[in-house]
Amino acid sequence: MAIIDKIRSPINKELKDFEPYFKNSLKSDVPLLGTILNYIYRTKGKQLRPMFVFLSARLHGEINENSQLAACSVELLHTATLVHDDVVDESYERRGFFSVKALWRNKLAVLVGDYILAKGLLLTLEKKCYSFLHLTSRAVEDMSEGEILQMKKSRKLDIDDETYFEIIRKKTASLIATSMAIGTASVTDDEALVEKMYRIGQNAGIAFQIKDDIFDYQEKGIIGKPTGNDIKEKKITLPLLHVLKNSDAGEKRRILRLIKRKNKNSATVRELVNLVVEKGGIEYATQKMQEFKDKAVNALKEFPESEARESLIELMNYITTRKK
Amino acid sequence: MAIIDKIRSPINKELKDFEPYFKNSLKSDVPLLGTILNYIYRTKGKQLRPMFVFLSARLHGEINENSQLAACSVELLHTATLVHDDVVDESYERRGFFSVKALWRNKLAVLVGDYILAKGLLLTLEKKCYSFLHLTSRAVEDMSEGEILQMKKSRKLDIDDETYFEIIRKKTASLIATSMAIGTASVTDDEALVEKMYRIGQNAGIAFQIKDDIFDYQEKGIIGKPTGNDIKEKKITLPLLHVLKNSDAGEKRRILRLIKRKNKNSATVRELVNLVVEKGGIEYATQKMQEFKDKAVNALKEFPESEARESLIELMNYITTRKK
Repeated sequence: MAIIDKIRSPINKELKDFEPYFKNSLKSDVPLLGTILNYIYRTKGKQLRPMFVFLSARLHGEINENSQLAACSVELLHTATLVHDDVVDESYERRGFFSVKALWRNKLAVLVGDYILAKGLLLTLEKKCYSFLHLTSRAVEDMSEGEILQMKKSRKLDIDDETYFEIIRKKTASLIATSMAIGTASVTDDEALVEKMYRIGQNAGIAFQIKDDIFDYQEKGIIGKPTGNDIKEKKITLPLLHVLKNSDAGEKRRILRLIKRKNKNSATVRELVNLVVEKGGIEYATQKMQEFKDKAVNALKEFPESEARESLIELMNYITTRKK
Repeated sequence: MAIIDKIRSPINKELKDFEPYFKNSLKSDVPLLGTILNYIYRTKGKQLRPMFVFLSARLHGEINENSQLAACSVELLHTATLVHDDVVDESYERRGFFSVKALWRNKLAVLVGDYILAKGLLLTLEKKCYSFLHLTSRAVEDMSEGEILQMKKSRKLDIDDETYFEIIRKKTASLIATSMAIGTASVTDDEALVEKMYRIGQNAGIAFQIKDDIFDYQEKGIIGKPTGNDIKEKKITLPLLHVLKNSDAGEKRRILRLIKRKNKNSATVRELVNLVVEKGGIEYATQKMQEFKDKAVNALKEFPESEARESLIELMNYITTRKK
């Protein structure tokens, strides 16, 4: 059995029930909107966030209708950010399919993203689940602040470890943290427990994003070349940050000059990737990722042993060892 | 005294109090975000929607802190749609200033629009004004559906009066309707009254959008030429719809061929404008606009006479006679 199937096994039924639930939330009578929402549904991802929601709910109680609502709300918010990210990053591909931006252009990607964003927030409003809405709203604010902070810092290339962690905590970790918190909130009123799960999710989310940032420097896929997307977009992430910290003034200037280049050719990308690999940037980032993952896992181990707990721990292992 | 100052006179103090309230809602500690929000604040418009909110509140009670909150929420939502509209319509100008899209490009315009959209919804959440949130959320859904419907219909150029009114009811009238409803809800629990004000605002909002659509065919501004923006973007609005309805099959084909042209030159635009003017499209649209405005005004006249009532009626007159 693939590891991901093993992780899903305690919540198989709920994930199955989630499919029509989520599909239904992506419906509209407005003709073109309905078509695009259906396309988005068909190109959906692994749905890691609903897994975090359901496993957290199961860890602390019985998964119920509200857990479905919570999972759907979180997955809609995630979906909305992806649709807008493709406009922001000018990506023509998403999960091996054309992006909404590519097929229907910026105009519709912006509007459909708005629609899904509002839907993600308002789904819980319709059901008067105000406590859920308070949780998701915090995530929406964090995510856009994180993205903007990243843009600001990467423009000026003035970024240190502290800023890097603030960015990824806001732009990525906040929604994973919210998934664990909202899943918990769907089965208990214990606010301290909800907050505790939020913090576990935050550490897991930080580890998740570091892994993503490492991918940029690693051989992968059919082509077997690092994507180097972050380098092309002048995003300085943890592996490169490590190299900058450990370079003398002259070397630092040279690296910044390379990364500032517009329309970098593959030789420039290759040069930066090699530098990061040689100077131990990958090892450093991997070690940091492990630290955050361990924090999350150790906190989970404080709860009594259960199938859900083991699956959550395995999920943490999965996100830090995945191949894509 | 200019007409707009006369309209504002019963709510002068509240509009003045609104300034710091609104400014404060457009603040952020995130560096670049703060800068952009400040720019947006400095290029703010006439704030017609807060006027609708305050006058409706005054008509039915005493304007209070919640009315400020309501006005701010509505103005934020309006602001968010403008920031995203500039991406959608590729506009480099807004209210005589550069648009956010022009100055900071699509990336940031999308993210900042998301941020303001969320803020507009969540401001009332923070204060636990859930009834307000139910009203504004309906508007957000309507606005994005209206925009997408417009895009769909204008692509295929299959649009009739009914569809046109559905589009403008959703994309424009919904937020003006919400302004009047939410202002009323800030001073009374009478749901029937809130709904009644919503419907009045809806008619006013439809009249407002027809006026906008007429502008596209009228001499105006320094250049003294019709903007013809809708024609350039293949948007068929009421004046042209009237002409299409009253043309024989051959003429209709010719008009549709003209409007379908990519990169229309000014002669093509001029030809379509002249056609609309000659065939009475402007008169027809103006008459329809008057009908909706009259509906709104007559419904207002059912309330006892007051300064607020007169100002609201004058505001309806203003939006249908304004020069820009």
